Amino acid sequence: MEPARAIGVGMLGYAFMGKAHAHAYRTISHITWPPPLTPELVSICGRDADAVAEAARRYGFATAVTDWRELVANERVQLFDNGGPNALHAEPTIAAARAGKHVVCEKPLGRDADESHAIWAAVAATDVTHMCGFNYRFVPAVRLARRLLEAGDLGELRHFRARYLQSWLAGPDLPDVWRLDRAQAGSGALGDLAAHVIDLARYLVGEPTAVNGLLRTFRPPRADGAPDVDDAVEAVIEFEGGAVGTIEATRMATGRRNAMQWEINGSRGALAFDMERLNELQVNLDGGPGFRTLLVTEPEHPFMEHWWPPGHIVGWGDTFVHELHHLLGAIAGEHGVAPHGATFEDGYRTAEVCDALVRSSESGRREAIAYRGLADAPAA
Amino acid sequence: MEPARAIGVGMLGYAFMGKAHAHAYRTISHITWPPPLTPELVSICGRDADAVAEAARRYGFATAVTDWRELVANERVQLFDNGGPNALHAEPTIAAARAGKHVVCEKPLGRDADESHAIWAAVAATDVTHMCGFNYRFVPAVRLARRLLEAGDLGELRHFRARYLQSWLAGPDLPDVWRLDRAQAGSGALGDLAAHVIDLARYLVGEPTAVNGLLRTFRPPRADGAPDVDDAVEAVIEFEGGAVGTIEATRMATGRRNAMQWEINGSRGALAFDMERLNELQVNLDGGPGFRTLLVTEPEHPFMEHWWPPGHIVGWGDTFVHELHHLLGAIAGEHGVAPHGATFEDGYRTAEVCDALVRSSESGRREAIAYRGLADAPAA
Amino acid sequence: MEPARAIGVGMLGYAFMGKAHAHAYRTISHITWPPPLTPELVSICGRDADAVAEAARRYGFATAVTDWRELVANERVQLFDNGGPNALHAEPTIAAARAGKHVVCEKPLGRDADESHAIWAAVAATDVTHMCGFNYRFVPAVRLARRLLEAGDLGELRHFRARYLQSWLAGPDLPDVWRLDRAQAGSGALGDLAAHVIDLARYLVGEPTAVNGLLRTFRPPRADGAPDVDDAVEAVIEFEGGAVGTIEATRMATGRRNAMQWEINGSRGALAFDMERLNELQVNLDGGPGFRTLLVTEPEHPFMEHWWPPGHIVGWGDTFVHELHHLLGAIAGEHGVAPHGATFEDGYRTAEVCDALVRSSESGRREAIAYRGLADAPAA
Amino acid sequence: MEPARAIGVGMLGYAFMGKAHAHAYRTISHITWPPPLTPELVSICGRDADAVAEAARRYGFATAVTDWRELVANERVQLFDNGGPNALHAEPTIAAARAGKHVVCEKPLGRDADESHAIWAAVAATDVTHMCGFNYRFVPAVRLARRLLEAGDLGELRHFRARYLQSWLAGPDLPDVWRLDRAQAGSGALGDLAAHVIDLARYLVGEPTAVNGLLRTFRPPRADGAPDVDDAVEAVIEFEGGAVGTIEATRMATGRRNAMQWEINGSRGALAFDMERLNELQVNLDGGPGFRTLLVTEPEHPFMEHWWPPGHIVGWGDTFVHELHHLLGAIAGEHGVAPHGATFEDGYRTAEVCDALVRSSESGRREAIAYRGLADAPAA
Repeated sequence: MEPARAIGVGMLGYAFMGKAHAHAYRTISHITWPPPLTPELVSICGRDADAVAEAARRYGFATAVTDWRELVANERVQLFDNGGPNALHAEPTIAAARAGKHVVCEKPLGRDADESHAIWAAVAATDVTHMCGFNYRFVPAVRLARRLLEAGDLGELRHFRARYLQSWLAGPDLPDVWRLDRAQAGSGALGDLAAHVIDLARYLVGEPTAVNGLLRTFRPPRADGAPDVDDAVEAVIEFEGGAVGTIEATRMATGRRNAMQWEINGSRGALAFDMERLNELQVNLDGGPGFRTLLVTEPEHPFMEHWWPPGHIVGWGDTFVHELHHLLGAIAGEHGVAPHGATFEDGYRTAEVCDALVRSSESGRREAIAYRGLADAPAA
Repeated sequence: MEPARAIGVGMLGYAFMGKAHAHAYRTISHITWPPPLTPELVSICGRDADAVAEAARRYGFATAVTDWRELVANERVQLFDNGGPNALHAEPTIAAARAGKHVVCEKPLGRDADESHAIWAAVAATDVTHMCGFNYRFVPAVRLARRLLEAGDLGELRHFRARYLQSWLAGPDLPDVWRLDRAQAGSGALGDLAAHVIDLARYLVGEPTAVNGLLRTFRPPRADGAPDVDDAVEAVIEFEGGAVGTIEATRMATGRRNAMQWEINGSRGALAFDMERLNELQVNLDGGPGFRTLLVTEPEHPFMEHWWPPGHIVGWGDTFVHELHHLLGAIAGEHGVAPHGATFEDGYRTAEVCDALVRSSESGRREAIAYRGLADAPAA
Repeated sequence: MEPARAIGVGMLGYAFMGKAHAHAYRTISHITWPPPLTPELVSICGRDADAVAEAARRYGFATAVTDWRELVANERVQLFDNGGPNALHAEPTIAAARAGKHVVCEKPLGRDADESHAIWAAVAATDVTHMCGFNYRFVPAVRLARRLLEAGDLGELRHFRARYLQSWLAGPDLPDVWRLDRAQAGSGALGDLAAHVIDLARYLVGEPTAVNGLLRTFRPPRADGAPDVDDAVEAVIEFEGGAVGTIEATRMATGRRNAMQWEINGSRGALAFDMERLNELQVNLDGGPGFRTLLVTEPEHPFMEHWWPPGHIVGWGDTFVHELHHLLGAIAGEHGVAPHGATFEDGYRTAEVCDALVRSSESGRREAIAYRGLADAPAA
Repeated sequence: MEPARAIGVGMLGYAFMGKAHAHAYRTISHITWPPPLTPELVSICGRDADAVAEAARRYGFATAVTDWRELVANERVQLFDNGGPNALHAEPTIAAARAGKHVVCEKPLGRDADESHAIWAAVAATDVTHMCGFNYRFVPAVRLARRLLEAGDLGELRHFRARYLQSWLAGPDLPDVWRLDRAQAGSGALGDLAAHVIDLARYLVGEPTAVNGLLRTFRPPRADGAPDVDDAVEAVIEFEGGAVGTIEATRMATGRRNAMQWEINGSRGALAFDMERLNELQVNLDGGPGFRTLLVTEPEHPFMEHWWPPGHIVGWGDTFVHELHHLLGAIAGEHGVAPHGATFEDGYRTAEVCDALVRSSESGRREAIAYRGLADAPAA
């Protein structure tokens, strides 16, 4: 087999998500062999000229720029990868799509539902491929869960309980990061962590119809105003199929570092998962007591054809290999009408649930969730 | 050491709770040596004359009766133990207390907050000792958690997330039990399971101030009207100290049989627990990653002076030994002003939270919780 | 149902095993209803007159004596329960059996294979029922494992790996207990812990044919000569069916308190167990990856008809309820020719494996194991 | 920072280990930034011309060859990476070293101790850097264990129990792989799996002094003679510091896919590990009950400066990134006199332990282990 034709990648951002995406592009070429398209790292953009130049050397981008408009203007860029802060999602992503570039944008898509809807609407008006970076859909155990759920193996779904537990804000020190600034981030644990949980809720269980929630910031802000975002979100959630449950996201869960945990109970079985053990799916397919700790590394398990023999686990960073490989396949026309990757519509819909949580926290009421279509105007 | 003076026990009910309590009374005499008082099984009461007679033979009660008023009238009964259906909690318990008998009543105390308040008020007007059967306060790991929390080892508390997961209603068959009948039970998963979670929330974290909840019954009732109680409760909870979290109780959690699971995150550490592994406490006292799986069977651990060498675990039934031993100590005057056992006031306060959950489920609103004092009249 | 006819119990020893057995006799009467025979606690024997008198009061024995010959002479004693130090197993047990009393003797049966064979031979020459106290056969998860193995669900057995890990000798302090004195105990971790592992190996996998082992005492003895027994045993083991594996027993395994862990791998599946989680069996019945954590508390699980609803776990002490209930059933003629309880022949056979481990440790050679029959003379 | 100067890599083999190493070289350049040397993939060698040509395209090697002598002759190759079958370890590795190329050779170094000693002696006579591919030294949790052990945090070491459990031979089908052919592999589970366990024993506990072991092949060979290697190894092991324990390796452990599990007990604490959860170390530093499940992803944990924020786990393949990065550092002169990577002397010493296991299995005797020095002639 020959390597596939190249696709030029322009990337905005070189920090956490930039590193994860760059590592994935470099890995796709040899791990997912042959790749549907071979990523060619054309240009990377960041505010700090020295830092972005070093990032270019490190990851092998041909050029480094400090203005994202240069990425948009660069004809060799065919795929625009936006891993910048949330405030930089809308304008560059829309501009890139209008310039005919396929776009992948990190989650949350926008800082709220209106901004997310605007991004979706603008990009959907072009004919580029778009993906919102909910990489946890590409965890092998999560994809296997989806497969079991689609097959109906759990029966009628009754419960979804999920929480995304981190602890980096639990101590006395407050780091100086954009994620604590509402202007840049839009929200705190809500958009950062709860958005992942909500996307998986939608991916695995179905469309949420109502939430009853609470946002909480535990500390008074510093002189610079930070944090002015939520530390934690607590909520009751209802689904169109009748399932109910709780969701939670927090940066204050001492003892937990990256524990996105969920459990689904159906009438005939149940599944459970913890991101800190991302190669394992807890499986119950008979309703009896207890779960099987299934190591999701068999040849027939999702994504495992790319990797190692059974029992040799993959890492968190490898989920981006799966995700961006899927995106390249979509661009190359390999997938059918329902790709697994979250589209910008998925990004928007999750934002609607997040907005409902904000409204519910403020109003103290159960908030129904209405999803707008492409033609709908922004909410007044 | 000599055995302690006897205390005559009269018991209402001989099914699940009756068996657990009778086993405990028979065990206290030799395991908790010397016991503060030696239980003497005087009389047991149940509706079915043959069945209650056999229960008397089985557990060693001197007599069996079919009218609880005989227990109240029996001068040899000094402690009245009410393990009957919820609808039989109020009248017999109050009558026994007014007859000067100490009383222990299974949870939930009453079928709602009003009934619970009435029981508390009536019994508090006598001078008997009263305890509400929240036996999970007497799990060694739970008591150890309380000890660590009282010492402040976790810092400022931020989160309490708990769920009581059973699965006996998940399948297609609907058992014929009083627990599915609102007239007898008052509620479903709410009073049966969520009440335990709420009592532990109060015992470990502090007083709940508001809830945002949802009750759900998944199936249409049969011809006989059952179930007319909730299968599941989902809620957000807030505490007076500022902690927030989620609570859940369900009889539909396939894969789980008796999984009362909770986790508490403070600013300096965290604790976690699962009733299906009731001898273990997950302990984090530095805020770093992960938990120690502490087997709570050391000599210095709560209740372990009664049992076996380290590593030899106790069972669920043994929690009643601890609970009723504590009650006998209270009656014998061994404890100070703040016994660990839930009083009837605790039983009432939990019922207030349960009522708030019902109101919130109906109104769709966050419901503040107001606790009445002894002097307060029932809510209109 | 009526209580069964009584059987008079005389007990030698009131410490750890005495407490466990006495608790079991008192519990059988009401938990295993109706019991095959109702234990009547006739007399208890110990060296310290005051202590044994208090033990009698505590557990409800009618009389207390300081010479075990009084138990043997007591006509009301029909079942002799020997929980004394190992050096007191042979003479009293044989005397009791010759006096027509059924006998249960704690493990190890004798201090070596010769003594064990002599006990077995002498008792088998009477017609009393005999049981050696390998109580771990009566753990529900262990019995369930046996059931699965008997059904052939694991295919051809290849591996048995087991270890009994305790840590009470790991620290600098050396307790003053008979278990460290060879004259009283016969051996250290070998007879105390490895014997349990060997008995389960025989119960679950089959007859050991050879061992290759090592005994180790880590510290020099004190002035009083203790410890003069092994702290740890390490061995390779082979079985008549072709399975091979490792066994280990130690009192030096920091972090472990009572972790008797074993795993069996067959051609079609595998089972694993840890005594510190004695209500759980790890089950794999298809050879695929991972195990189901089966909570062994379902109504159809062994012994669970006596206890609580699913999910309500039993404790270590409850295994003696199952064991002695089984013994009473055997005495009452309820069981067929192959009772699950270890007979004195089982006690002897385990001692042969222990002796082979001692020989192998000294010789450095693989030692074949030859089991003597009843007619065989003691080894010269 | 600038990328480091390049080092030309020539690789023998493109299957399992070839893929793992190639992936690592490609990852080092951007993940371990700046790398000590930048790997340049010069040439890859394999027997099948088409397959090796495709491997070259896939992994980015400049050329593909079918005779390893071309790698040795290639002046641009500065580092020779031998991931071929065991029978191809000696000659090419020695030739490459004699040609002045640094060498890394997969484990086991040779097919027995003599061959391993010969490789070590020949290569040590040159001045190239050599490493034997015991990649599990480069698991973050294993390296952290080493750090804790070097600090003396566990006290005096008493026990090492380890097992490497796979199951790919457990079913009825026998795959057609060189690993089952003694001529190519030298041994079965012994060199493939037990060698890893022995290397870690040496790395963590110290030098083994004696073993008492057993090799077992469960099935009769096919017509082609395979398997003529062992399926399983069981052994008792003794260390120079006084610790004792058991080791095991098997391809027949149903339920386990890649479970290299070990536990070390010292007088003051204990550590435990399972490769199927390779990001976790079980830590006990006080000798009390239970272990902390430490997620080894903190910034201060070994190798974590290269990767992601806390809680984001690495995969099995990433251990080769750490290993080969370490090798490049050694070549660049970054390390001191005691690098963590296994040298060829380590490869040889492990082979001596393996040989002792073979001798012990055949003789039935405890076999002492004598390690030869560089000057020693091969055993007669």
